Amino acid sequence: MPASFDPDDPVFISHTGGKLAVHGTVPLATRDDLSIAYTPGVARVCEAIAEDEFLVHKYTWVANTVAVVTDGSAVLGLGNIGPRAAMPVMEGKAALFKQFGNVDAVPICLDTQDPDEIVALVRALAPSFGGINLEDISAPRCFEIERRLEAELPIPVFHDDQHGTAVVVLAALRNALTLLDRKMDDLRVVISGAGAAGVAVAKMLIAGGADGHRMIVCDSRGAIYCGRSDLNAAKREIAALTNAEHLSGGIDVALRGADVLVGVSGGTIPESAVAGMAPGGAIFALANPTPEVHPEIAARHAAIVATGRSDFPNQINNVLAFPGIFRGALDAGATRITEEMKVAAATAIADVVAASVRPDAIVPSPLDPRVADAVAHAVAVAAREGGVCR
Amino acid sequence: MPASFDPDDPVFISHTGGKLAVHGTVPLATRDDLSIAYTPGVARVCEAIAEDEFLVHKYTWVANTVAVVTDGSAVLGLGNIGPRAAMPVMEGKAALFKQFGNVDAVPICLDTQDPDEIVALVRALAPSFGGINLEDISAPRCFEIERRLEAELPIPVFHDDQHGTAVVVLAALRNALTLLDRKMDDLRVVISGAGAAGVAVAKMLIAGGADGHRMIVCDSRGAIYCGRSDLNAAKREIAALTNAEHLSGGIDVALRGADVLVGVSGGTIPESAVAGMAPGGAIFALANPTPEVHPEIAARHAAIVATGRSDFPNQINNVLAFPGIFRGALDAGATRITEEMKVAAATAIADVVAASVRPDAIVPSPLDPRVADAVAHAVAVAAREGGVCR
Repeated sequence: MPASFDPDDPVFISHTGGKLAVHGTVPLATRDDLSIAYTPGVARVCEAIAEDEFLVHKYTWVANTVAVVTDGSAVLGLGNIGPRAAMPVMEGKAALFKQFGNVDAVPICLDTQDPDEIVALVRALAPSFGGINLEDISAPRCFEIERRLEAELPIPVFHDDQHGTAVVVLAALRNALTLLDRKMDDLRVVISGAGAAGVAVAKMLIAGGADGHRMIVCDSRGAIYCGRSDLNAAKREIAALTNAEHLSGGIDVALRGADVLVGVSGGTIPESAVAGMAPGGAIFALANPTPEVHPEIAARHAAIVATGRSDFPNQINNVLAFPGIFRGALDAGATRITEEMKVAAATAIADVVAASVRPDAIVPSPLDPRVADAVAHAVAVAAREGGVCR
Repeated sequence: MPASFDPDDPVFISHTGGKLAVHGTVPLATRDDLSIAYTPGVARVCEAIAEDEFLVHKYTWVANTVAVVTDGSAVLGLGNIGPRAAMPVMEGKAALFKQFGNVDAVPICLDTQDPDEIVALVRALAPSFGGINLEDISAPRCFEIERRLEAELPIPVFHDDQHGTAVVVLAALRNALTLLDRKMDDLRVVISGAGAAGVAVAKMLIAGGADGHRMIVCDSRGAIYCGRSDLNAAKREIAALTNAEHLSGGIDVALRGADVLVGVSGGTIPESAVAGMAPGGAIFALANPTPEVHPEIAARHAAIVATGRSDFPNQINNVLAFPGIFRGALDAGATRITEEMKVAAATAIADVVAASVRPDAIVPSPLDPRVADAVAHAVAVAAREGGVCR
């Protein structure tokens, strides 16, 4: 028996039979019902779509449906546990999509980890869905997979581990800066971690106004800079966008005088390193379940502290972003999710609590029902303004 | 605008927004709920499945979930209309799965018609599902696709156009024979049509006791016999199983003296041909929406007449079979659907109305709520007896 398995544990009891169901939404009680929803009536709907493909968005569930696709290669902090063990997370994600965004989401756990095969598979699945949420696919494979699918598919593709995290970090930082009376373009930001989330946070903060030249992204070997010999393509791109002074060295060197630390690494950062930050800054230590810096320690060296955990203040949780982002994209008939739509989502999240922002409440609660509606509206407006709608 | 498209028509109004939805089945209203259904609680369920893959059947929705997979190549009688135009049929099928079998079914319309690609795709999707219902895939490609998937996957694979039709035909014929006081092995059966349904009906009736040597299957070129030079692999197999006397010629020749005609061709059979049948037999003219022989004409030449339509007596409809067959297979943890399980399903369908069987009521109504339970029970028993369960 697995060490973690206890059938009498409330978590396992709650998961028995899974966390999702499919329901029909039309009556099927009489012969007339059958003749409308199924043969012969359905044939006319099929013919209409065959003649005008666009009608699939009106007369099927496709326009409200998102595939939550994983290959099980980077599930939570558990690593490469494969497609079957990934299913509980994908089901949870799908349930959250419905709860907060009224999006019908279907978990698809693929039995391959080959990027070419994953791209081919998702491309072939695309007619059945209005959007693709990639989930828990390891870096750097996730970058290539997302880039190719975005280029090939006429529907939104969104790798939540990258962009969901990045959007909520940007939202949190905006409200933190209000409290700190600082400006986005006047910060020295350090990002610890250059996987899916780290790369996306760096780009999102730059899109949101942060100064890339002064930003430093660290991986496990230290600061990333142009010319470092061991960089993959994604890190080379980060090197070109950040660290204009080519600073090298460990996280302790990078953090000297920094205003903001975003931890998305899963490692631990010693107190001696964060002690070198400029006073009155912000530390977002987002590794789960163990933050890179314990919030009590972080509070000694920063004015504002956030984590990914629900048992500390300022929980930076993707659920603030993805249900509303897809709701807005689907409502607008968006064909992709642009940087502008992500920035709009971050602004909308921040604005929900902007009037009442406090150092221990820079982001809304993950359960705040106002968030998804606000995000959806902002994302739909940005999609229409950006001209990326069908 | 497509000729068939009328947004004010009740069929189109009913289809607006589609016919399916996904729902979460666990509460997500509090932080505690989130910590059970999502992080951190869900991680323990993932770890348990990673250590013991079998637990995926207990702690996810996989064990109750069926993919309804099509490539849109043979949708109803509409032909090769592609994956998007096929979606309304697949949604309807999924809604019927839920309504009658309490099976969670997800429509998957694939953007490829290459058999190798379809096999690779469905194989990669398999971890997410407890069974695969293939639908509206054209013959002879459907035979190869089903055969390869059955061989490779550890879950039931069932091409409904073949086996669903065949199971209900066998059920109908059993009850018809009771009324006619005839025996299954003493009949001359003619099947008009050698596509997906025709091939499966021939095999199913033989599995159910019919005499293959005296059975004749006709395609558009007439009777199929060993040595006919234009046969594909599926028809060569049919030639080997049937027509021992190597009869050649058209449907009129085949029908001379026949006791039973099963039409699954979509074509029309002239009255002069059915007039040659032995008196007191049965005609099942199943093409939709236009039966091969109009039931009024058929009634002049046969004692029992059935069609695929809801507006004539004796509707032979797959919905009598597939919800209960998958319900039973999933309940038993079956790894495949055997001939014995299909015969058991046919017997169960026939038995529901056996005590009250009449010439105009040889099968239950598609809406009869007793059917799926009876089929599921019989199929699960046959699966366990056959030793094909996990």
